[in-house]
Amino acid sequence: MVRVGVVGGTGYTGVELLRLLAQHPSVELTAITSRGDAGLPVADMFPSLRGRVGLRFVDPANASVDNCDLVFFATPNGIAMQQAAALLDKGVRIVDLSADFRIKDVAQWQRWYGMTHAAPWLVAEAVYGLPEMNRTVIKDARLVANPGCYPTATQLGFLPLVEAELVDTNHLIADAKSGVSGAGRKAEVHTLFAEAADNFKAYGVAGHRHLPEIRQGLSEMAGKAVGLTFVPHLTPLIRGIHATLYARLTAPYEADLQTLFEKRFNDEPFVDVLPAGSHPETRSVRASNTCRIAVHQPQGQEIVVVLSVIDNLVKGAAGQAVQNMNIMFGLDECAGLSQIPVFP
Amino acid sequence: MVRVGVVGGTGYTGVELLRLLAQHPSVELTAITSRGDAGLPVADMFPSLRGRVGLRFVDPANASVDNCDLVFFATPNGIAMQQAAALLDKGVRIVDLSADFRIKDVAQWQRWYGMTHAAPWLVAEAVYGLPEMNRTVIKDARLVANPGCYPTATQLGFLPLVEAELVDTNHLIADAKSGVSGAGRKAEVHTLFAEAADNFKAYGVAGHRHLPEIRQGLSEMAGKAVGLTFVPHLTPLIRGIHATLYARLTAPYEADLQTLFEKRFNDEPFVDVLPAGSHPETRSVRASNTCRIAVHQPQGQEIVVVLSVIDNLVKGAAGQAVQNMNIMFGLDECAGLSQIPVFP
Amino acid sequence: MVRVGVVGGTGYTGVELLRLLAQHPSVELTAITSRGDAGLPVADMFPSLRGRVGLRFVDPANASVDNCDLVFFATPNGIAMQQAAALLDKGVRIVDLSADFRIKDVAQWQRWYGMTHAAPWLVAEAVYGLPEMNRTVIKDARLVANPGCYPTATQLGFLPLVEAELVDTNHLIADAKSGVSGAGRKAEVHTLFAEAADNFKAYGVAGHRHLPEIRQGLSEMAGKAVGLTFVPHLTPLIRGIHATLYARLTAPYEADLQTLFEKRFNDEPFVDVLPAGSHPETRSVRASNTCRIAVHQPQGQEIVVVLSVIDNLVKGAAGQAVQNMNIMFGLDECAGLSQIPVFP
Amino acid sequence: MVRVGVVGGTGYTGVELLRLLAQHPSVELTAITSRGDAGLPVADMFPSLRGRVGLRFVDPANASVDNCDLVFFATPNGIAMQQAAALLDKGVRIVDLSADFRIKDVAQWQRWYGMTHAAPWLVAEAVYGLPEMNRTVIKDARLVANPGCYPTATQLGFLPLVEAELVDTNHLIADAKSGVSGAGRKAEVHTLFAEAADNFKAYGVAGHRHLPEIRQGLSEMAGKAVGLTFVPHLTPLIRGIHATLYARLTAPYEADLQTLFEKRFNDEPFVDVLPAGSHPETRSVRASNTCRIAVHQPQGQEIVVVLSVIDNLVKGAAGQAVQNMNIMFGLDECAGLSQIPVFP
Repeated sequence: MVRVGVVGGTGYTGVELLRLLAQHPSVELTAITSRGDAGLPVADMFPSLRGRVGLRFVDPANASVDNCDLVFFATPNGIAMQQAAALLDKGVRIVDLSADFRIKDVAQWQRWYGMTHAAPWLVAEAVYGLPEMNRTVIKDARLVANPGCYPTATQLGFLPLVEAELVDTNHLIADAKSGVSGAGRKAEVHTLFAEAADNFKAYGVAGHRHLPEIRQGLSEMAGKAVGLTFVPHLTPLIRGIHATLYARLTAPYEADLQTLFEKRFNDEPFVDVLPAGSHPETRSVRASNTCRIAVHQPQGQEIVVVLSVIDNLVKGAAGQAVQNMNIMFGLDECAGLSQIPVFP
Repeated sequence: MVRVGVVGGTGYTGVELLRLLAQHPSVELTAITSRGDAGLPVADMFPSLRGRVGLRFVDPANASVDNCDLVFFATPNGIAMQQAAALLDKGVRIVDLSADFRIKDVAQWQRWYGMTHAAPWLVAEAVYGLPEMNRTVIKDARLVANPGCYPTATQLGFLPLVEAELVDTNHLIADAKSGVSGAGRKAEVHTLFAEAADNFKAYGVAGHRHLPEIRQGLSEMAGKAVGLTFVPHLTPLIRGIHATLYARLTAPYEADLQTLFEKRFNDEPFVDVLPAGSHPETRSVRASNTCRIAVHQPQGQEIVVVLSVIDNLVKGAAGQAVQNMNIMFGLDECAGLSQIPVFP
Repeated sequence: MVRVGVVGGTGYTGVELLRLLAQHPSVELTAITSRGDAGLPVADMFPSLRGRVGLRFVDPANASVDNCDLVFFATPNGIAMQQAAALLDKGVRIVDLSADFRIKDVAQWQRWYGMTHAAPWLVAEAVYGLPEMNRTVIKDARLVANPGCYPTATQLGFLPLVEAELVDTNHLIADAKSGVSGAGRKAEVHTLFAEAADNFKAYGVAGHRHLPEIRQGLSEMAGKAVGLTFVPHLTPLIRGIHATLYARLTAPYEADLQTLFEKRFNDEPFVDVLPAGSHPETRSVRASNTCRIAVHQPQGQEIVVVLSVIDNLVKGAAGQAVQNMNIMFGLDECAGLSQIPVFP
Repeated sequence: MVRVGVVGGTGYTGVELLRLLAQHPSVELTAITSRGDAGLPVADMFPSLRGRVGLRFVDPANASVDNCDLVFFATPNGIAMQQAAALLDKGVRIVDLSADFRIKDVAQWQRWYGMTHAAPWLVAEAVYGLPEMNRTVIKDARLVANPGCYPTATQLGFLPLVEAELVDTNHLIADAKSGVSGAGRKAEVHTLFAEAADNFKAYGVAGHRHLPEIRQGLSEMAGKAVGLTFVPHLTPLIRGIHATLYARLTAPYEADLQTLFEKRFNDEPFVDVLPAGSHPETRSVRASNTCRIAVHQPQGQEIVVVLSVIDNLVKGAAGQAVQNMNIMFGLDECAGLSQIPVFP
């Protein structure tokens, strides 16, 4: 059994992590910390966990997560970078669901996140936890930076095209739509039901924090800097991300894009390439760790359109974190992640 | 392994049944019939099942469900009553999710359902599949009539009060609210998104088919005919039923209603009595087989208010059907039903 | 032209008031105050008002609403009671959309609202602004207490039954469902989209602030104290209230309840009694000042069921406030309130 | 008064047309036809119109719409083309909300719409009713082809860029999202609440009927054939379209795009260019005839992003139809269209 601690379990990624871990066959959940809610039974805050998670939130000051095998950080940005070093020193491995260790260029990270990085030396060590790219290095990582939700959907969708050098990587476009849980469980006016229901809007067009993360990943795939226009939107879903990706073929493509995608993801347990002509729906992955992808070449023109959907809280956060844990500890990669999507 | 067939797998209770059965450790799914979609891979209609259910729909004419141990009918009303006898004769046991065998008074059934019953002699044999009432007889039943969704939430909520003879059973009131999936997967104008979203309405106030079913169950608990006003409402949820129940105490109640409820359901794996003062939310049981209940006595007056929530497709249909199967075949009653509710 | 000021225009009732006033033929909007947003153009906060409301929020300290003919308070509870006296002294009339002047029994108000009343002497003078009950006295009122949303839907629905002394007023039941905008535009976790969407729950069963208000109104109609069980629920609508009301006939009723309701509301411009057998939908009054009502007597039994729907922000708040203004200033009662409901 | 008839008033564009026409100061509504619902009072089907529209649906066979000044066709595709000629011959002017007369290239129309055109000679005469492009010719038109919803939002958003010849028109991209009412009021499974709620998907990526219509409009603006990738999506809104448009600047642009847009639409009563940096929300135009637009140039790169929102039933259908009528009959262009958007 892997002894697991969760730091910061009161947000949506936290409670989703608890849902998955409580059903995981090889995990012993030892502690869930929360500064504000210490002492409260977890199931009092989240009645969905009644009878399934018996722990109380503990104060991080008193919590002994340093005897865990693995600690998940489901904290706001800026927390994990302060605590990671001490835990690693005690031999605890870490999967950080926040953004603290995702961007290799620390100066760039500081610009986008508006704070000084507390552990820049760990940024270099941290492994970007997208298993479809980095499975081998994740295996031995001490510190995994779990990808953001938009970056997961977007990178998986572009991956076969960029790796195969088929498209103009100077002008990639990602038009992405997210459910409202992606904004977290903070009390804010713009994510109130009466604001976000029956409403659709773009946001952060001038620049969103996931832009440098996606650009970094795509650049790594391409082996050179890529140009990306990334426009996120808020759509009235609880869960779900739909990325619509546009790229221009640099040359007439002889082979079949469908086959290219199917081959690339053939061995991936959590990427499902749909039959040609399909349109994946976000609900087809609701509450599951699957990414479903379809590739189109409308009217045979040179613009390729890729449709990629995930559940932002699962493959886009907690599920991918568990997948990374499974890889790190040599477990079946699908352990605890076999729930069938909830439909309708 | 229990060999299982599903007759009529294209509706919401059908696909939910498939979701649960595909994850059940002791079930072998052998056939899923559909007249209209024979030949189609099930996962083509329901992409959420891709990689998890490999079967195709088969024509009921050609389907050999008679070699199953158990057949679920997830058909419209009026189908199971025509096919049950032949299957039972071959030793196949049946859980019918439709209303065909729920009402003991055949004449009354025929009035409410507007058709002649094709197998009245089986109505007497059929066991009403509410485990919290009838667990013992379910065990040996050949034919189980799986309860309706409103009846499940309502009967479980009234059960302790009526059994203990604490309330005036001549004037019970059940104000129930259902998500739209309860109306099924038929193409109809009034359940279109643009009709049912951002809208709330009562319906069937003059008389709803679940009224006689609930009345029959409550009368059995009470040992005498009860009077019930039942008002169903449509609310913009995909899944979920919330029953708000009103009953008048016939005498000042010395003891504690909270304790009464807790005791009654203490051994029930799928009924969760919340702490005093709680308000159960439908999402706290989303995609799970749990019924959560809270009992209130506002301002200490004589009107008792019970709040009872279920997922209409799980405890209100497919989950309860699997629970009944587990009981019938001597399996762990929770087998295949341990999914934690999906929150948010 | 009536010179109108709005104190506290940043919430949902505030912006709805602005929508209605900006389209009112006899209103000159002179000032909208907001402590926190002084200086901001109103249309910057609410782009729906671009090109239609040119004012900026002004600081209440500097605002000269005392030269208005009428001031609407769209403030949280506890503000109007502090400012009303000074305005009334200057001859300004007031419609208060908060709860400050709704409850005649000041001690009771203080218990439910948890504060000391700052102007108890004005409570006696204040007129409860339900035109269908109090039109005559509203006409000459200096200070109108605009009813709450639940109280409006509930009182209008019970009115004909209680006035005609047909029902047992000791055990009235109001099962009411509200859209989320009823909770206001404060940033709170429980009204976030990801909390309130696809979810249904009761709340405040032990006691809700609208209970004493409704009880007071019904008692006035009945000429004696009434007993009421009131259970509010939150449903995933932006706007809308649906009250399902239950009352027991005290004697077999010879006459026709349908006719009773139609007669009672025959001259009311904003109450629409639907044909017998109808089920009003909340969307049928969306964005309009109409209350639609249907009365049922299921299976001819002694329990009467009344269905009453309003838009909580219009007839339940801003629209009724404008209706009261129209009455107070001798305008056509429908002036500025003739918008047809938005459907779908 | 303009005497107006509506052919086909039972869909969403039909009822929206009735909402607008019933509030129009210069319109006399004389007849609303429906084959299936002849005899039914319009307000029985649409209770939102109770007390506001007193007409009954009449059978088109018996309806005398030929004495109208103007007839709106709110019919499925393929009806108007059969009836237009006869009406025009009697001097009746026509605004057709269906697609029958939108595409100048009849062969192309027949390919996309899968039927033989019944009145190809009228296609040439028909004026495409986008006032911001064609106001002058609309004025004298006998037959106006009212634009589709996606085409309206998309063309208005691209208009200033394409007219000014600033962008590469070979590779325009329109990523558009529509509320579910855009699919009409037909009973279909994929637009059921339980299918479309909490779900997001693209559709018609291979080719959507609005593609040739948009391409035709953009080509006219550009003075040459344009290349367009158009991806429509279904999002859980009742009403609203959000078009996210991508175009590449062909040369570094010295001037200010913001100013370009503001100038272009300065005199347009129904196009609102938001301040630089804005993100228009669909709800900011809900139930109104306004199109709100924002233009961005993220990170100063060469890709321009335009955000354009409309209410698909108003500016995308019925409202634009009324606007065209106002122009055709020399009325104030805003007559009957001054409703403020409903927010929240």
